[in-house]
Amino acid sequence: MWGDFMKTAYQHADFFTMNRDNQIFVNGMMIVEDQIISYIGPYSADLLEEADQVVDLGGKWVLPGLVNTHSHVLMTILRGIGDDMLLKSWLETKIWPIEAKFTSEIATVSAQLGILEMLKSGTTTFSDMFNPNGIDADAAMEVIGETGIRGAFSYSIFSFGTEKEQKANLLGAEKFSKTYKSFADGRLTTMVAPHSPYTCTPETLVESARIAIENALMVHIHVSETDFEVSDIKNRYGVRPVEHLRRLGLFDQPTVMAHGVVLNDEERAILKQYDVRVAHNPISNLKLGSGIADVVSLLDTGIKVGIATDSVASNNNFDMIKETRTAALLQKGVYKDATKFSAQTALHLATRGGAEAIGMSHTGSLETAKKADFITIYPFDKAHLQPLSEAYSHLLYAASGHDVCDVYIDGKLIVKDGSCLTIDEEKVIAEVNRLQANLSRVD
Amino acid sequence: MWGDFMKTAYQHADFFTMNRDNQIFVNGMMIVEDQIISYIGPYSADLLEEADQVVDLGGKWVLPGLVNTHSHVLMTILRGIGDDMLLKSWLETKIWPIEAKFTSEIATVSAQLGILEMLKSGTTTFSDMFNPNGIDADAAMEVIGETGIRGAFSYSIFSFGTEKEQKANLLGAEKFSKTYKSFADGRLTTMVAPHSPYTCTPETLVESARIAIENALMVHIHVSETDFEVSDIKNRYGVRPVEHLRRLGLFDQPTVMAHGVVLNDEERAILKQYDVRVAHNPISNLKLGSGIADVVSLLDTGIKVGIATDSVASNNNFDMIKETRTAALLQKGVYKDATKFSAQTALHLATRGGAEAIGMSHTGSLETAKKADFITIYPFDKAHLQPLSEAYSHLLYAASGHDVCDVYIDGKLIVKDGSCLTIDEEKVIAEVNRLQANLSRVD
Repeated sequence: MWGDFMKTAYQHADFFTMNRDNQIFVNGMMIVEDQIISYIGPYSADLLEEADQVVDLGGKWVLPGLVNTHSHVLMTILRGIGDDMLLKSWLETKIWPIEAKFTSEIATVSAQLGILEMLKSGTTTFSDMFNPNGIDADAAMEVIGETGIRGAFSYSIFSFGTEKEQKANLLGAEKFSKTYKSFADGRLTTMVAPHSPYTCTPETLVESARIAIENALMVHIHVSETDFEVSDIKNRYGVRPVEHLRRLGLFDQPTVMAHGVVLNDEERAILKQYDVRVAHNPISNLKLGSGIADVVSLLDTGIKVGIATDSVASNNNFDMIKETRTAALLQKGVYKDATKFSAQTALHLATRGGAEAIGMSHTGSLETAKKADFITIYPFDKAHLQPLSEAYSHLLYAASGHDVCDVYIDGKLIVKDGSCLTIDEEKVIAEVNRLQANLSRVD
Repeated sequence: MWGDFMKTAYQHADFFTMNRDNQIFVNGMMIVEDQIISYIGPYSADLLEEADQVVDLGGKWVLPGLVNTHSHVLMTILRGIGDDMLLKSWLETKIWPIEAKFTSEIATVSAQLGILEMLKSGTTTFSDMFNPNGIDADAAMEVIGETGIRGAFSYSIFSFGTEKEQKANLLGAEKFSKTYKSFADGRLTTMVAPHSPYTCTPETLVESARIAIENALMVHIHVSETDFEVSDIKNRYGVRPVEHLRRLGLFDQPTVMAHGVVLNDEERAILKQYDVRVAHNPISNLKLGSGIADVVSLLDTGIKVGIATDSVASNNNFDMIKETRTAALLQKGVYKDATKFSAQTALHLATRGGAEAIGMSHTGSLETAKKADFITIYPFDKAHLQPLSEAYSHLLYAASGHDVCDVYIDGKLIVKDGSCLTIDEEKVIAEVNRLQANLSRVD
C-alpha cells in the first residue's frame, strides 16, 4: 500500500510543526516511514539520499491535520434546517423528529458528506457522537472506515422510550463500543457516549460509566451547554451538572465534555481534578444562543481543551480553521483584551492540544514517532494569503478550510489538490440531495 | 462596451433579490439594460425573445454584490502584522510607524491586492478610508477606478504634526473630496473622513463638517470603538464621543460611524435623531479586544447599520460572507437568544441595508432600476453547500467568499469563474511580496 513500509521524503515546503516549541522549518524536510514521521527538521541531503521516494511539495505550507473534538456527521443532511432557533426547541421540534425518520442509507450518506467536507477542509481526526435510532451502526462504521479518516465514533445513549428500549440502547452502545474499539487499521476507535445529564437518568449514567471503565474507553458527553440545562439539572437533582456527574462516577474514566459554556470556578476545579477535557464549540454555542464558553479560564485552570464544530445543523459547516479563528476572536472580544488567546494557543488547540484532549496524542503535530497526518496549503496564488512573510498569522486569521490543498493520514494521500480520493464526491452529493427531498416530503 | 446599451437576459439561476420582501426567484430571470436591472422575476419567454444576448447561468445562485461599509485597502500589505495586540499600542507601535514609511507604490499595490480580494469574495461596493501620508492619492484613485469596483474613498484627516501640516492635510482632503466626488463613470465617490474624535481636534472636526456640508458629502469617521476612547474623550471634553461630535455639528451632514462598540441608550437616540449610520466591524472589534457592538439595540432604535471588515491588519481578510455570519452569530451568543438577528437580517445588512447606510441605495439588491451589481455561486460540486434545498441558509451560515464564482458591476463581468478580469493577479501578488520585504527590512 502507498506510503507503507517505504521511506518517503517530503521536501521543498515550510513545516509548521505545532510541537511544544512551535518550531517552523522553512524549506525543511519530513521523512515518513511505515505511516510514522521518522524525521522532521531542516533539509538534509543525506536523508534525502536514503529515501525510497521523494515528494516535492512545491513550496507549500505544511501543518498537522486538524482535530475536530466534537461532531455529529450523521446529521450532515440536516444542514440549514431550523436556523435561528434555541437549542431546546431546535432539538425537540426539528432535529429529533427528523432524526426519527432516519434510515441507514441516510445515515451513511450523511456520514460520507460530512467526512468529505472535513477531509477537504483539513480535518484528519474527529470525535463524533451519533444517534443510533433506526440506523445500522455497523454499516456506518464500515463507510467511515473507508474514508481514511482517523477518530473516535460514539454510539449515543439516551434514557428515552420504554425500559426495554433503554436496555436495548445500552446493550447496543456497549456492543458497538467493544466491537469497534480498534477498527480500520487502528485509525478508528470508540468512546462511551451518554448524550447528556438532561437526556440520561442517573441509572443510565452509572451504567455508561461502568461500560467505559470495563472497556477502558473514554466518555464523551454534552455538559453545561446552556443556562436552562444547569437550572434544570439543579431542579431535578439539587446540584449543577458537573457535580451531578462527578457523584455518579462518570468522571472516574477520562471524559470529554462537549460545550462547558456555563461553568463556575468550583466546577472548573472539579474538571481539572478529574482531568475532564472540554470540546469547545464556539460557533454552535453562538448560533443556538447558548453563549460563549470561558476558554481562557479553562486553560488557566490547566484543563485540556480542543476545538470542535458540533454538527452542521448548528454551525453550519465543518471548517476547523474558521472555528478556531472564531474561538480566538471571541475570547479577545469578551475579555476586551487582544493579548488573550494568541494565534499560537488557538492553533495548538486545533491540533496537538485537541488530539491530547480526545486521547489521541499519537497525532496532532509534526514530530518524530507521531502518525503522518498532515495537510498542505498552496498560498502563492491566493490574494488573501499575502504577504507570504506572515504565514503563521495567516494560517489562523486569514486562511480557511478552502485553502487546504492535500491531506495525508497515516502517510497516505487522502485529498489531492482539493479532490478527495477515498469518497465519490459526485455520487455522495447526488445521493444526499435525493434523500433530503424524500426526508422533507415525509415531514 | 460589454453590457452597455444592450439588453442582456440572465437565466437558468435562482435569484435571491434581497428586496424588501426577500423574494427569491427559483429558476428566474433578470434583464440588464445599460448597466441597470430592467427586469427581475420569473422566467419569461417573451422577455427572453427581446434580449440582445442571453447568459445561461447554469443553475447558479445569484445575489446582489456585497457591500463593505468600512475598510482600509491601502493597509492590505500589513496583513498579519501585529496580531494579538490592543488597538492603541497596535496603532502607535505597529501600524502608524510602518505607514509612515509608505510610498505611492506600496499604497497602489496594497489597494490592488485588497480590491482583488474583495472582488473575488463577492464585494462589489466598499467605503474606504485611507491615510494619505506620503502617498499620491490621485494615483491610488486611478488604480482603484481601473479595478471596476464601486464605492466611496475617503482621505483621512488627522490633527497630527505642525499647524502647517494640519492645514495641508485639510486642504488635501478637501481637494480630494471635490475632485473625485464623481469618478470612474460615477462608480466612485468620496466622503469627508476626520479619522476619529481622539486624533482630531475640535477645530479640525468643525472644519471637516464644513467641507462635508459645502460639498454635500457624507462624513466617515471612527467613533466609540473602545472603552479607552470613551473615557479619553470624556476626560478631554467632559462628554462622551457621540455628544462631543454632535455639539461640533459633525452630524449635521449624513455620517457613517465606524464601530459604535461602546454606546448607551442616550447615544443611540442621538444617532437615530441625526440619522447617523453605523458600520459594524465584528471581527476587527473582537481581534483588537475592543468588544462586541450591540447591533440588536442599534436596529431596534431604527439606526441604519452596515457590515464591514475594517482593514486586513485587524481581521485578517476581506471576506464579507464570513464577516456577516460572525455578526449574526455574535448577537445570538451575547443575547443568549438564537432568534435574534436572523439570516434575513444579516444578509440584508450585508447588501441593501449596507448600501443604504453609505448612501448608495442605487445598489445592494436585485430590483428594477438598481445598478446591475451581482454575484454568483455555483453550489453543485461543493460538499459544504449541500443539501441544495437550504440555499438561503447556506448563503449566510455555510458559504464563504471562496464560493463566489462570477462578479458583475454595472452589468460588466469583473470576476469570471473565480478569476479577476480587471487586475493582473500574478503581478500584484509578486509586487506586494517584493515591497513587503523592503518595508520590513527598513523596519
